[in-house]
Amino acid sequence: MSVVPSASYSVTVRLEVPAAGGSVSRLTTAVEQAGGIVTALDVTASGPQRVQIDVTMAARSSEHAGELVEALRALDGVAIGRVSDRTFLLHLGGKIEVTSKVPIRNRDDLSMVYTPGVARICLAIADNPDDARRLTIKRNTIAVVTDGSAVLGLGNLGATAALPVMEGKAALFKRFAGIDAFPLCLDTQDVDEIVETVVRIAPVFAGINLEDISAPRCFEVEARLRERLDIPVFHDDQHGTAIVVLAALTNALRVVGKQLPAVRIVMAGAGAAGTAILELLLAAGAVDVVVCDEHGALHPDRPGIDERLCALARRTNPRGYAGSLAGAVEGADVFIGVSAPGILTGADVATMAPRSVVFALANPDPEIDPAEAAEHAEVVATGRSDAPNQINNVLAFPGVFRGLLDAQSRTVSQELMLAAARALAGVVRAEELNAAYIVPSVFHPGVTEAVAGAVSGAASGSAAG
Amino acid sequence: MSVVPSASYSVTVRLEVPAAGGSVSRLTTAVEQAGGIVTALDVTASGPQRVQIDVTMAARSSEHAGELVEALRALDGVAIGRVSDRTFLLHLGGKIEVTSKVPIRNRDDLSMVYTPGVARICLAIADNPDDARRLTIKRNTIAVVTDGSAVLGLGNLGATAALPVMEGKAALFKRFAGIDAFPLCLDTQDVDEIVETVVRIAPVFAGINLEDISAPRCFEVEARLRERLDIPVFHDDQHGTAIVVLAALTNALRVVGKQLPAVRIVMAGAGAAGTAILELLLAAGAVDVVVCDEHGALHPDRPGIDERLCALARRTNPRGYAGSLAGAVEGADVFIGVSAPGILTGADVATMAPRSVVFALANPDPEIDPAEAAEHAEVVATGRSDAPNQINNVLAFPGVFRGLLDAQSRTVSQELMLAAARALAGVVRAEELNAAYIVPSVFHPGVTEAVAGAVSGAASGSAAG
Repeated sequence: MSVVPSASYSVTVRLEVPAAGGSVSRLTTAVEQAGGIVTALDVTASGPQRVQIDVTMAARSSEHAGELVEALRALDGVAIGRVSDRTFLLHLGGKIEVTSKVPIRNRDDLSMVYTPGVARICLAIADNPDDARRLTIKRNTIAVVTDGSAVLGLGNLGATAALPVMEGKAALFKRFAGIDAFPLCLDTQDVDEIVETVVRIAPVFAGINLEDISAPRCFEVEARLRERLDIPVFHDDQHGTAIVVLAALTNALRVVGKQLPAVRIVMAGAGAAGTAILELLLAAGAVDVVVCDEHGALHPDRPGIDERLCALARRTNPRGYAGSLAGAVEGADVFIGVSAPGILTGADVATMAPRSVVFALANPDPEIDPAEAAEHAEVVATGRSDAPNQINNVLAFPGVFRGLLDAQSRTVSQELMLAAARALAGVVRAEELNAAYIVPSVFHPGVTEAVAGAVSGAASGSAAG
Repeated sequence: MSVVPSASYSVTVRLEVPAAGGSVSRLTTAVEQAGGIVTALDVTASGPQRVQIDVTMAARSSEHAGELVEALRALDGVAIGRVSDRTFLLHLGGKIEVTSKVPIRNRDDLSMVYTPGVARICLAIADNPDDARRLTIKRNTIAVVTDGSAVLGLGNLGATAALPVMEGKAALFKRFAGIDAFPLCLDTQDVDEIVETVVRIAPVFAGINLEDISAPRCFEVEARLRERLDIPVFHDDQHGTAIVVLAALTNALRVVGKQLPAVRIVMAGAGAAGTAILELLLAAGAVDVVVCDEHGALHPDRPGIDERLCALARRTNPRGYAGSLAGAVEGADVFIGVSAPGILTGADVATMAPRSVVFALANPDPEIDPAEAAEHAEVVATGRSDAPNQINNVLAFPGVFRGLLDAQSRTVSQELMLAAARALAGVVRAEELNAAYIVPSVFHPGVTEAVAGAVSGAASGSAAG
């Protein structure tokens, strides 16, 4: 649900009204009084007595969209026809397609695109497999791979239900980085089977983007695939988030005049995103990080703590704090939440150090309402598009993969991710930087180029290519 | 290698010549005298003394293309610059791409294409998985799957070298049937692993086109996948070939005034194509078929005959013929070869029944030169584009899958393939039919529609959908 009406809950209602003055303004007034926004009005048919109008409205939720339709239905003389959900309409038949880059107009074309001409290309690649990167789609194509076990914030919906997200990801790869990406939703959630399947489909691709695979299995899947494959493997929910968070934090600390090694950081969430953010922060020079999960701060002696979390605990929490999140944030400079809604209050933020930074990134509802956080923190960021400083992975993954493909890299290193974060932070120029602008808009035209340039530079510079 | 110069061996040479009259005609004459054809001439730069020209020429082979270049180099005053192979150029970066069907211009678009709007689509599919066929690419997308074990006529080149063929196949699916097809080249040749991999990647697809998988493993792969999946699985090298052969034979028999149940048929080749052709001919009503392989006619008592071929032998060869191909074709009405070059002579064809039909389909060099066969047979067909009656799978697989997708079919039945063959044969109207026109051109605009219509009709009519 959206705080304000959003295009994602947008419907188009076809209705008829009497052909009299004031008819149209009655419609828009009714929608606005019911809390919606009219975003488009089109007269689609007109007669002496009646006018047919398509009214497009943004609502706060599906239920609210229904309320808006009823508000219109309640008006005198209004007859409601078809109600179309724009988001559903946009999804009919899927959001991506495979197209030919070469003409096939006649036999000559056919004999080059297919037999017999294509045989020579096959033989050339059989002779020199590296030529695949020049002569096939392997040059520019990645796979977006999921098992549907952690679809957005919706949980384990499975492979088929995950497909719209993966299609969207592929559309974004093309739109923002010119990368050809194909979705593969795997009908298995067994780690061995996922790894084997990706290894077997790998020949066509120059990179693998793992998506929406639940922790902790995602760590093992990524690690094992990185061992087995000679193309880069990148779990965006982990590292894309981490890159954007580090970039945003870099700029936020510039705004508040603090240095990363000197600040006290508290994190909420030790899943995929939290773990990756932590790793990148430590690599970037952070030294004082306390990680909390739903049971409180990670401490090596916490009763029942599992092996993975215990290992994280040993590398963090220098003062050995054991207790709740609220106690952890007291006096802290930075809070980063990738956990659950409503676990932080304004009063908690008020106990943080002066000039505090709060990133409340739980989706769709953040750990704390950003307006409430802003009463006490100097810089506030969320994952929401309707608040300032949106931490959105779209700022990272297109440029990261563009750089990896351009460098024909075989791996993803931490140096590469740090370089990406630095480049992303640098897109915000010093004169533009302020507490409400610490990351660029996803539509900022310089983002992909900056990130890709840094990544391909880092990839080319590293030993393994 | 091509009998005549072909665009598939086409090069563009950038050269400079003196800016004098006659320069250009010297070039074209030299190319023609060396056996090539000039297909394009472009003056790309011009000065008082010298002119730069791009000369595009078709050759008979790669070696011949080199000879043509040397023929130009030998001319007085000619300076050769860059030589570009058009087929290679066309393949740079691959032949297909993935594009977005929906605009992503601003936050509103993003919120419908991706989060948060896409979440509602995922939930709808989780609620009702059949909705994937309406709301995702599953509606119109198939996978082109190979293990690279039988790439065209080149043998076991492996997954990566097979990719140009699979890309070409995908481009043809789009060009001829509007189908989105994605290539998956598997890095395994183990039947179990191939089957498991395809089962796991299946959720995104509405059909599987198996390609270039060697016999006899291809039979098991297809059969096991048909058991496991609820989407149609179709090995084009088997069934696409069979459909086109049956359609062509239907029309050829019309030309020579014979009936399928009454003719004696001899086949050469018992691999993927041969086996499938045999099955379809028997289903269509053929009763007298003798199949030969490199060891002669298939006969149940042939020493060392394996189980699979023995099973075929028991269903064919009614007169129990044991012997060579040459003996088998004596008095036969029809020869169909899907085997190797040069195994049939003009003298062999001369021993066939009057008004014989010869399909010599070995690629790239047929069992017998078509001109030689035509001295004795009434109707001759090959797989070559430079001879009449080209038996080309492109006539079948686009329409077959278009029909399967339109009917949302779960299976491929023999009735469906017979219907496809009938429809394909019917594209050639009675008044057009003659010994040199028994199948339509692949560019005939009515082919896909006719085949798809028949297939979707047959698919909708069958019990399992």
